[in-house]
Amino acid sequence: MLDLCLLGTGGMMPMPNRFLTALLARLNGKMLLIDCGEGTQVTMKLLGWGFKNIDCICFTHYHGDHISGLPGLLLTIGNAGRTEPLTLVGPAGLQYVVEGLRRIAPELPFQIIYREMEKEEDSPIQVGEFTIHYCKADHMVPCYSYKIEVKRRGKFQPQKAKALGLPKELWGVLQKQGSVVWNGNVYEQDMVMGEARKSITASYCTDTRPVSRLKEFIKGSQLLICEGMYGEDEKKDKAIAHKHMLFSEAARLAKYAEVEKLWLTHYSPALSEPEAFLEAAKRIFPETELGEDRKNITLFFPET
Amino acid sequence: MLDLCLLGTGGMMPMPNRFLTALLARLNGKMLLIDCGEGTQVTMKLLGWGFKNIDCICFTHYHGDHISGLPGLLLTIGNAGRTEPLTLVGPAGLQYVVEGLRRIAPELPFQIIYREMEKEEDSPIQVGEFTIHYCKADHMVPCYSYKIEVKRRGKFQPQKAKALGLPKELWGVLQKQGSVVWNGNVYEQDMVMGEARKSITASYCTDTRPVSRLKEFIKGSQLLICEGMYGEDEKKDKAIAHKHMLFSEAARLAKYAEVEKLWLTHYSPALSEPEAFLEAAKRIFPETELGEDRKNITLFFPET
Repeated sequence: MLDLCLLGTGGMMPMPNRFLTALLARLNGKMLLIDCGEGTQVTMKLLGWGFKNIDCICFTHYHGDHISGLPGLLLTIGNAGRTEPLTLVGPAGLQYVVEGLRRIAPELPFQIIYREMEKEEDSPIQVGEFTIHYCKADHMVPCYSYKIEVKRRGKFQPQKAKALGLPKELWGVLQKQGSVVWNGNVYEQDMVMGEARKSITASYCTDTRPVSRLKEFIKGSQLLICEGMYGEDEKKDKAIAHKHMLFSEAARLAKYAEVEKLWLTHYSPALSEPEAFLEAAKRIFPETELGEDRKNITLFFPET
Repeated sequence: MLDLCLLGTGGMMPMPNRFLTALLARLNGKMLLIDCGEGTQVTMKLLGWGFKNIDCICFTHYHGDHISGLPGLLLTIGNAGRTEPLTLVGPAGLQYVVEGLRRIAPELPFQIIYREMEKEEDSPIQVGEFTIHYCKADHMVPCYSYKIEVKRRGKFQPQKAKALGLPKELWGVLQKQGSVVWNGNVYEQDMVMGEARKSITASYCTDTRPVSRLKEFIKGSQLLICEGMYGEDEKKDKAIAHKHMLFSEAARLAKYAEVEKLWLTHYSPALSEPEAFLEAAKRIFPETELGEDRKNITLFFPET
């Protein structure tokens, strides 16, 4: 099961009652963070999942509201006692940007591994058990949307093990260790497992226009966390000019991508009452909910 | 009169209930900020003095908790419509550090003027009506304490104006404009004023040990804002090792420097109840007060 927490729901600048948009995912005690604006470490502190076990931080893009909290968070992760490497993932320029920010955090007790995206299209990055898919978004600067996948192996197939002639007492060992040697032959786990089962999937799209490739990319996600910079449909010209989305556009994206649930986020500082625009979005996609700071959910593997 | 607001009182990392230590000064609508950690713009937003009229930002040093909020604040100042140059003041390395941070805020609608300190000792920097004094502190890295001075001209001396033969109807013009031409001669304001009167002075000392040169530097300040990283006297070894101060050391510094009032700040994240150590500090220096987020005061010119 995958725990997800929307750490903040603001866009552009941190506000007194609204942290900047970021997503924290937790799987078997290991964490992955997407985006890290000014104050992200404070809302994380309020959440209480700790700092030490963040194995990966992904950035959608390098506008300040999505990365300005990084140097402080890196220092805090170091103070929490981390010594294992930390992987950073983001568009081209990642190392240049992070090394600039690290002029105020030059000494860390852990190594940083940079994974800059080289292509526009998906070629998943694996960090621990997190499979990180990405897709080029449509914003003012190079920007990516993410889909976090947790894969699930197929079921053990006793008939396959029997057909291989593997003694029963080695079945458990093989599943636990991944391979086993018997009678001079190596047996791999894949040889006794059925087809992989459905994954857990959660998608995160901000800052972007609702372009069609995103619809394909997030298809069928259990949860879509998507920007809704503006509530009012009258702000469509502004949304287009600044490459953001209306609530209604996010709801339509969720509908056509057939996701199970939509959480809106990345509200404009001027959008003081997102509640006012929820019903209209629900008329387009009933499973629309408003994101709130530290709103969280646990996703389970789908029934197969 | 000089308005001062202690924007936050924390040290090391921003906390859910405590912003990082920073001081905002306001004089005739113009503002000067000292230090800018992660979240400083949020407490400024709560304060409500605006962003556009910040003419100067001074840094004590470049540890993350004193500068990590800069790129976000620069963007917010830009969004507030500033186009006039902004002066940054700090120890050597200022431009290197700020240009690193500005990789996420490369485009601003105003110019940045860098004023790196060249010497350890005081050679005041003038930004508008703010006279900025600085003194080398004693910390793990190069660090400065600041004293903000607002100078006050002497009183108008009618007998001097009379002696110059200047007609009465020009006296007001001369004081307002700073100079006046009469009968082909230029008359400067200084020619008709008495000696300069006492200034407004406020000092800001963090992160530092209470070295004796600081005592001289802050001498007689109307307000001393001073770090008290630890409340317990038992933490003296820790204070020495990390180059910080105990409450009692700050109180002694205030006493020997004969300041009028002391506000403690820059509390350790572990210091959850600074109240517990106030009385002991007041026994050393009765005019000790605990700093609180957005505690503010207005200082007036002293009676002469």
